[in-house]
Amino acid sequence: MKPIAEAEFALRRERLLEHVRAHGLTGGVLFDDRYVQYFTGFGFLATERPVAFAVNVAGEMAVFVPEFEVDRVRAETAFERVESYPEYPGLEHPMRIFARVLADMGIAAAGADQDGYPGILGYAGPALSEVTGVAVVGVAPFVESLMVRKSPAEVELIRESARWCEAAHRLLQQYSVPGATEAEASLHAGHEATLAMLAAIGHTGQQSSSDGVSAGYRGQIGQRSSWAHAVAHDIEFKAGDLLVTETSAPIWGYHAELERGMVIGPPSDEMRRLFDHTVAAQQVAFDAFRPGATCADIDDAVLRYFEANDLLGNWRQHVGHGIGLRNHEAPFLDIGDHTPIEPGMVLTIEPGVYASDLGGFRHSDTVVVIEDGIEILTDYPRDLESLTIPA
Amino acid sequence: MKPIAEAEFALRRERLLEHVRAHGLTGGVLFDDRYVQYFTGFGFLATERPVAFAVNVAGEMAVFVPEFEVDRVRAETAFERVESYPEYPGLEHPMRIFARVLADMGIAAAGADQDGYPGILGYAGPALSEVTGVAVVGVAPFVESLMVRKSPAEVELIRESARWCEAAHRLLQQYSVPGATEAEASLHAGHEATLAMLAAIGHTGQQSSSDGVSAGYRGQIGQRSSWAHAVAHDIEFKAGDLLVTETSAPIWGYHAELERGMVIGPPSDEMRRLFDHTVAAQQVAFDAFRPGATCADIDDAVLRYFEANDLLGNWRQHVGHGIGLRNHEAPFLDIGDHTPIEPGMVLTIEPGVYASDLGGFRHSDTVVVIEDGIEILTDYPRDLESLTIPA
Repeated sequence: MKPIAEAEFALRRERLLEHVRAHGLTGGVLFDDRYVQYFTGFGFLATERPVAFAVNVAGEMAVFVPEFEVDRVRAETAFERVESYPEYPGLEHPMRIFARVLADMGIAAAGADQDGYPGILGYAGPALSEVTGVAVVGVAPFVESLMVRKSPAEVELIRESARWCEAAHRLLQQYSVPGATEAEASLHAGHEATLAMLAAIGHTGQQSSSDGVSAGYRGQIGQRSSWAHAVAHDIEFKAGDLLVTETSAPIWGYHAELERGMVIGPPSDEMRRLFDHTVAAQQVAFDAFRPGATCADIDDAVLRYFEANDLLGNWRQHVGHGIGLRNHEAPFLDIGDHTPIEPGMVLTIEPGVYASDLGGFRHSDTVVVIEDGIEILTDYPRDLESLTIPA
Repeated sequence: MKPIAEAEFALRRERLLEHVRAHGLTGGVLFDDRYVQYFTGFGFLATERPVAFAVNVAGEMAVFVPEFEVDRVRAETAFERVESYPEYPGLEHPMRIFARVLADMGIAAAGADQDGYPGILGYAGPALSEVTGVAVVGVAPFVESLMVRKSPAEVELIRESARWCEAAHRLLQQYSVPGATEAEASLHAGHEATLAMLAAIGHTGQQSSSDGVSAGYRGQIGQRSSWAHAVAHDIEFKAGDLLVTETSAPIWGYHAELERGMVIGPPSDEMRRLFDHTVAAQQVAFDAFRPGATCADIDDAVLRYFEANDLLGNWRQHVGHGIGLRNHEAPFLDIGDHTPIEPGMVLTIEPGVYASDLGGFRHSDTVVVIEDGIEILTDYPRDLESLTIPA
């Protein structure tokens, strides 16, 4: 699997520059690690040491990093101009040094994703507008709007991610047996799936040596499966448990999402009823992708299904969210998001049906919007028989 | 291992309230997930769905969460007042709903960690000051200053984290043999160490079922070990490799850090020279913790060691950083940080010695400052013999 090609990064930067020029600005500045990756492919560990990307209206680029990153940046990226500072906080604040780089590039009034480096991990420093003396125009909403529609190359990376989510989920299902714990099942599944992925397609942009494929639970086991964002408790699986899974397998940074509701042992009638509604509600969402629909329309269709089936007491969350370089991103399949659905959008479809006293089910699939509907990128059984684990 | 006791959270909140009252404000508002955890113990998955904590000058508290978190918050926390919104973005923006909660609590002019929920994962929304109509006073620097000195209970959690970093590192060293890959070694080590930790001390606040202990590499293998923040490449170990490791084992959210420089096969004279300087530079830092020293003094002492030994060309990074609920935090052992060293600070001590053409070494240990120096919390060999892996 190849990463995004340099030509595509150049096109993305050109669109950013068009936006910057149209607003009468002299350049663009990005601090967010995902935005830098989106426009350049440069991946780095975001810490309290500022990293920034700058491009002026002539298209000249610079990356700004701590000095210890310079050798790596020269070896692993195509940046011609690599600017650095000795350390953070250092004798002179890195933002002051960065201001001189911007001045040298002719960047005064800048379109920036934020007015300075974000305050992560104890970082503190002056705003960009303070060190340049010029107010900043925010470009984050524009960048987010670019990221919403995925290119064919991006869809291929997400499709590959989906394959490894599927592989990991098969292992997770196999290891989630009564007497095993959520930690045992997920560690086994992630460990095996990651090594299988590396053997099959090699390194695909992982930061740490154990990064790769994961499949597991975030506490949604037994009655806790009714908590859409539970947390782990090292729970031991037992017959009668409802389960909601999660998976992840970033490929050159791009994510698919695959989640399944499952049950251990023969489902009760009530479990079967909730499960059938989960599958049906997801189908309602799939079918709601018609030309001219908005994100809100998809969520509204599912809400009407809940209402028509007397399930509003079992409703907890909207239908889904955008996904790409981040595991959640805009737009949101929510009655409050009126973004028109457009080809190239990649979204999760994951209505859940929850009962506080019993537990809940949620199937999440990742889809790409095409001209006349959607293509489902995650290929994994959705039926109760396939998702029943022998007790 | 018990989490931080409720009485300690109450004391922390009281210090926040003293600060808020001293500034003539009517309450405190926190959006950052680690800050919420610091003052309340409440752990949650921070996403595009806003979560906030509010406390008024009378000490009345509320947590503000998406509706699907309410059941869990009632079951797993002691919050009496749990306020919620249906979904994000929703028909009414959650920040507008939150503004009514604040008004009901009598909070107008607030001390807040930031002016609204941060723009993570596609979140967008109005500033806190916009929805309340009152300017916000930033309290993040004050909160950071509180977090710098750890309580005895915090130090015990970090000490326990150190034990599991040590256990994982022993496994990592055992699995890092020629012919194995960085992924294989780190996945094996993390898998085994996590299950051993859960068996020994049980659940300690992990969010996902596979969270626990990790030990591995971030690309610092062979010549790449000279890149202080490299990234993984699924590298196969071979004789002659220099290695720099990393470990992590959060216990109720608290981190220690243990890293070691290692070598596969008999070290060359040059490797031995760099290694000996790494150990000596770390000892210089240990010895520099004297009453009255500042963070800058520690870094300066090590810089003078580099200078005296003609090693400035091998210098890449400052001595270390604070550590606690985040794996990096203020203060920084850097010539630019003039924070006085005080008992209760927990810091990493990790000068590295790097040669671009050969590789680098870095030992990172976690220490707590005591009245007359430091106590080293991470107990792992530092000598070359112990850290040489048979080729």
